[in-house]
Amino acid sequence: MTLRSNRQVVLTSRPDGIPQAEHFRIVETTVPVPGAGQVVVRNEWLSVEPAMRGWVSAVANYSEPVALGSVMRSFAAGRIVASQHPDWPVGTAVTGMFGWQEFALVDGTQIERRIDEVDLPLSTALGVLGINGVTAHYGLLQIGQPKPGETVVVSTAAGAVGSCVGQIARLHGCRTVGITGGEVKRELCMERFGFDQAVDYKAPDFPERLADACSGGVDVYFDNTAGPVTDAVMTHLTIGARIVVCGTASIPSWNPPPLGPRIERHILVKRARMQGFVIFDHLDYYAQARTDLAEWVRGGQLKYVEDMLDGIEAAPDAIAGLYRGENLGKRLIHLNAGQM
Amino acid sequence: MTLRSNRQVVLTSRPDGIPQAEHFRIVETTVPVPGAGQVVVRNEWLSVEPAMRGWVSAVANYSEPVALGSVMRSFAAGRIVASQHPDWPVGTAVTGMFGWQEFALVDGTQIERRIDEVDLPLSTALGVLGINGVTAHYGLLQIGQPKPGETVVVSTAAGAVGSCVGQIARLHGCRTVGITGGEVKRELCMERFGFDQAVDYKAPDFPERLADACSGGVDVYFDNTAGPVTDAVMTHLTIGARIVVCGTASIPSWNPPPLGPRIERHILVKRARMQGFVIFDHLDYYAQARTDLAEWVRGGQLKYVEDMLDGIEAAPDAIAGLYRGENLGKRLIHLNAGQM
Repeated sequence: MTLRSNRQVVLTSRPDGIPQAEHFRIVETTVPVPGAGQVVVRNEWLSVEPAMRGWVSAVANYSEPVALGSVMRSFAAGRIVASQHPDWPVGTAVTGMFGWQEFALVDGTQIERRIDEVDLPLSTALGVLGINGVTAHYGLLQIGQPKPGETVVVSTAAGAVGSCVGQIARLHGCRTVGITGGEVKRELCMERFGFDQAVDYKAPDFPERLADACSGGVDVYFDNTAGPVTDAVMTHLTIGARIVVCGTASIPSWNPPPLGPRIERHILVKRARMQGFVIFDHLDYYAQARTDLAEWVRGGQLKYVEDMLDGIEAAPDAIAGLYRGENLGKRLIHLNAGQM
Repeated sequence: MTLRSNRQVVLTSRPDGIPQAEHFRIVETTVPVPGAGQVVVRNEWLSVEPAMRGWVSAVANYSEPVALGSVMRSFAAGRIVASQHPDWPVGTAVTGMFGWQEFALVDGTQIERRIDEVDLPLSTALGVLGINGVTAHYGLLQIGQPKPGETVVVSTAAGAVGSCVGQIARLHGCRTVGITGGEVKRELCMERFGFDQAVDYKAPDFPERLADACSGGVDVYFDNTAGPVTDAVMTHLTIGARIVVCGTASIPSWNPPPLGPRIERHILVKRARMQGFVIFDHLDYYAQARTDLAEWVRGGQLKYVEDMLDGIEAAPDAIAGLYRGENLGKRLIHLNAGQM
């Protein structure tokens, strides 16, 4: 391996709310050399997640916040380019929490898995076969528990998780309503992801359009946004409805929590169940979900869209861009793996 | 049976929010005579429930609203004084939805049950062995699912449901924290109902007192109030907490819903589950719950307090009084059964 630089995206200050480009800095170090039991992964794809907002927050959250001065935590997919670990030879395609950097020095335990779906693009390991697909599978099927014929509504329906939720719900015999922002995403929901209805939350008559789309009531609401979109959905719950709390993308800051209409009466009168989950609690579920997801992708029943940014320079602003809604599909950063 | 008058409390207008005395009128009719398959029950005890607010509301609810001009719906307990039904002889003590009236003409199907606990006061059929005890039993054990050693918090802790929740939780090995209004009720919670801690929500430093009482976090929150009390509890949830939504007593009107701090982030980060229930969905659960409750009452492990109003004249203002917090324990109206 020739010596070259390893560029890394480091968290330099802690945002109150959504991380912006100014909260990161790109630094250059040397490419690491593996010690005993270690490997070096050359990242080809870095993942960008709405959840990263929480990962850098010091406010109570579900994981330790990324330390200031350290490489931004992220999923990545790449290949092993140097190895001192007998089980992980050079050339193996792997995925794991390798961080926003070109080369990652990791020990065997930090590798989430060897990527076995060699017939599918490597990038799918981060989206439809990665955290997003698994999140949709677990949240919808294990928490939402939809039954055939029920109406499933999902917010951020054109996104990496939402698009999977809608398609998995349809595969389970449900009627699906997607909520998304703007006409382009609405068409994507209808034409590519096969939602029965898609509603633009930016439309001035959104509440009426949602009411039309949900005239039979909402049996399962997979909530990626919270906020006014959720307020509108809550008024359409059926008796026994399930609300899956997966994300709160529409709320710029929870410190302090913003005000909204109280929901206890809906929960009571509709005997509804509202439940949050964090997919990292369910690592033992991933393999079984991935088996389903890969089969559906191969069968053309589960479609996905990727939003690819080019080069590590794109990383610092990439989370903020997600919250600006500028991506179409799963946001990824492609690193030029050819140039070594 | 001598002819005498039957006084009834009739709903005359529909409140927006909490029903007041002015929404009812007392009318006099003649005591009914049973037809074939019918009985006449002389009510000795009428029940007063916070849930009656919902029963008279035209806003979406879990039951058909009481029709204007008809007798106020309520549980009652009394004895059969005239019968044309072979299974229900004169003298039988019964309970059911007999309404706010001195005499009720009912057919066999309207009788909820014969009161078998002849060793206990008849009034217990409406409270600790009635809808309140069963509600506490089902909501806490079936929805809250407390485990020994967990902390269970309940709002309206001195009330008919809340006091049962606390005691049942303690019988299941939980640490219990009651939230109630004022020092008298706080002492009642501690001394009679055996809560480990009781906190006065009217105290200026309520949030700090609650934080002290819940320093290990809240595993189960049995919510009878919604509103600011609930907002304070939500900040102390443990991971995997359960919130049982049983009532919304602190909210005077849901039309429109009042604003409060959004809760989605708590639900997500704490992987919490918030679930509403309506006890009338679970009629098949009553008998098993009542067996437990009666055993605990007889054993002195489940204490109750009754707040008795005298005469049907007290009924029209009785719901409003509940919401003013003037009762201590289960509110009942005692009708003078001796005078016939």
